[in-house]
Amino acid sequence: MRELSRESVSDIAVGSAVLGTGGGGDPSLGQWMAIHAIEEYGPVRLITVDELDRDSLVVPAGMMGAPTVLVEKIPGGQELVNAYQRMETLLGKTIEAIMPVEAGGVNSLLPLVLAAQKGIPVVDADSMGRAFPEVHMTVFHLNGLSPEPAVLADEKGNTAVLYPADGDWYEGLARELTVRMGGSVAVLDYPLRGEQVKQSAIPGTLSLAERVGSMLRQFHSRENSPVQSMIEQLEAVLLFQGKVVDVERRTESGFAKGKVCLTGTGSYRERECELLFQNEFLAAQGEGKVIATTPDLICVLDEETGTPVTTEKIRYGMRTVVIGLPCHPKWRTVDGLNLVGPRRFGYPFDYVPIPKTIQGSV
Amino acid sequence: MRELSRESVSDIAVGSAVLGTGGGGDPSLGQWMAIHAIEEYGPVRLITVDELDRDSLVVPAGMMGAPTVLVEKIPGGQELVNAYQRMETLLGKTIEAIMPVEAGGVNSLLPLVLAAQKGIPVVDADSMGRAFPEVHMTVFHLNGLSPEPAVLADEKGNTAVLYPADGDWYEGLARELTVRMGGSVAVLDYPLRGEQVKQSAIPGTLSLAERVGSMLRQFHSRENSPVQSMIEQLEAVLLFQGKVVDVERRTESGFAKGKVCLTGTGSYRERECELLFQNEFLAAQGEGKVIATTPDLICVLDEETGTPVTTEKIRYGMRTVVIGLPCHPKWRTVDGLNLVGPRRFGYPFDYVPIPKTIQGSV
Repeated sequence: MRELSRESVSDIAVGSAVLGTGGGGDPSLGQWMAIHAIEEYGPVRLITVDELDRDSLVVPAGMMGAPTVLVEKIPGGQELVNAYQRMETLLGKTIEAIMPVEAGGVNSLLPLVLAAQKGIPVVDADSMGRAFPEVHMTVFHLNGLSPEPAVLADEKGNTAVLYPADGDWYEGLARELTVRMGGSVAVLDYPLRGEQVKQSAIPGTLSLAERVGSMLRQFHSRENSPVQSMIEQLEAVLLFQGKVVDVERRTESGFAKGKVCLTGTGSYRERECELLFQNEFLAAQGEGKVIATTPDLICVLDEETGTPVTTEKIRYGMRTVVIGLPCHPKWRTVDGLNLVGPRRFGYPFDYVPIPKTIQGSV
Repeated sequence: MRELSRESVSDIAVGSAVLGTGGGGDPSLGQWMAIHAIEEYGPVRLITVDELDRDSLVVPAGMMGAPTVLVEKIPGGQELVNAYQRMETLLGKTIEAIMPVEAGGVNSLLPLVLAAQKGIPVVDADSMGRAFPEVHMTVFHLNGLSPEPAVLADEKGNTAVLYPADGDWYEGLARELTVRMGGSVAVLDYPLRGEQVKQSAIPGTLSLAERVGSMLRQFHSRENSPVQSMIEQLEAVLLFQGKVVDVERRTESGFAKGKVCLTGTGSYRERECELLFQNEFLAAQGEGKVIATTPDLICVLDEETGTPVTTEKIRYGMRTVVIGLPCHPKWRTVDGLNLVGPRRFGYPFDYVPIPKTIQGSV
């Protein structure tokens, strides 16, 4: 257990946006919200999965919707509090710890906002080890845990609770409500006992994000290529380096979907790469070949500063470096790939594990 | 308090379809479901609003969605039971009486199904005194009562609970869920104490329906024109008599919307009439004039038998009589007309009270 410093919060925000693979929201927004909450309500304690009491009631919290919406419709905080109170009322119990659903510039930080307000700890874990577009794409779902009661709340005072027939119905009904509620809503779901979190959650996601964020901050102040240093430190794979020459973006069925075209720079000169996204970057392909796919992490960083670039912010002319990180082993199983593999998102190709061999230098 | 006979159930079904003004479902379906439940679980007791205990927990129940969907996707009963159980769990109390939300061939009968299964009485009242398309078009809403928690359930095992910001949000979110859940769902909402039912509900709707149904049955067996006898007995107004020459019907945003064109027969020969509907018949116009509008009741009956004709069953060639009945006085107020007047449904005209003078003979 440790108290999170302002610097830690800032590092978690930036690092989570890297792990968020383009989704999960903008880190400056997430950082601002968390620091504001800590200043108003007091410090936040981070606890490890091991430190968690077996009987504690733990609830994951975050926003769902298109990240493009989140840019203009900033979460006010009240929707999170409404969802939180409804969850406690429904369970007839007090929530004892909170955790992120996914890694993301906003979604890793919102649990800190609630933790500060409620004076409860944040668990250093999440349910994806990255970010995914759909609400049931969690290791909890993979392990047969129920999201019930799943609570959605908006800033207008609406709250909805779902008891879905299965994971697909959960996603379908929650997405429909999210769109009607304005494109983004607060979600609290999968209320779990500490024991279930220990067994199922992906541990250490927040401290990994902090490490990534801290690396970028330190390298940035000392070196010319923070990205190269980060690739080495994280044992990441360089997938591409290039300039954004086209972005196709549309908001469809409550998602930000589209394609980014890159033309190579540096050692990738005269080559092309296409990034396909649905909230998150889900596949990279070039010269007729699939380079990397979901569930592995495809992270786009600013070439110069190493700052993570989200799918809603990426635009023409940006100079980027695309790196790959292997996903959590739970996603590389048959069940895992059925839930979050590329075909699940309608892409006409199978999962291609990130190659260890195309590691290059920026 | 009295036990409902098989004949009463049958009369209630037919009479409710008359009061349902074309909506609320097909009476043969409703009748079949109620009689089947009574045979399986035992008799149903009907109690008046006066007999209701002031502290009893009373919950209205019914189906929402497009009646056209209900024809093919017949309620299985399990969705009602799921919604019922969820409501009891949420309230932490046992439901002590059930009542219809609206008058309708299915919606007046579903409470009887639940009453038989649960061994509780049905209250002789409803919240509309007719049927309306939207879920919050109730006298409860008019009186500031909250629908919370509003429980929706489908036959696939999904349950959703809404705590809406206001009536429009309730309708909007519930409609979105209904469409996604397949076009029709069971709804239990406005959990009330007996005292609130006494103050707000429209009393006697089921016994009025029974009287209408019984009239049609008796007249039908004795006379040539059951419709004319019914007009006299109910002090209804003859609005039109004619043959259906065209039906425009579409399922839009979860509603069955459209228009029926009639060409006059009998004393209406050489005249034309148009009926506009959205689940229910909401306006009648002819020769450039508005003849009758919501919230007054516009009921379409088979010319020969007096059988009510619903909006999903009306078709080319049917010979019909259109009668008008004044709505409950609560709907003729400014607030009432704002909620259920013709402009609310997008029609470009104001409420026209049913004239007393065009009473004619069939």
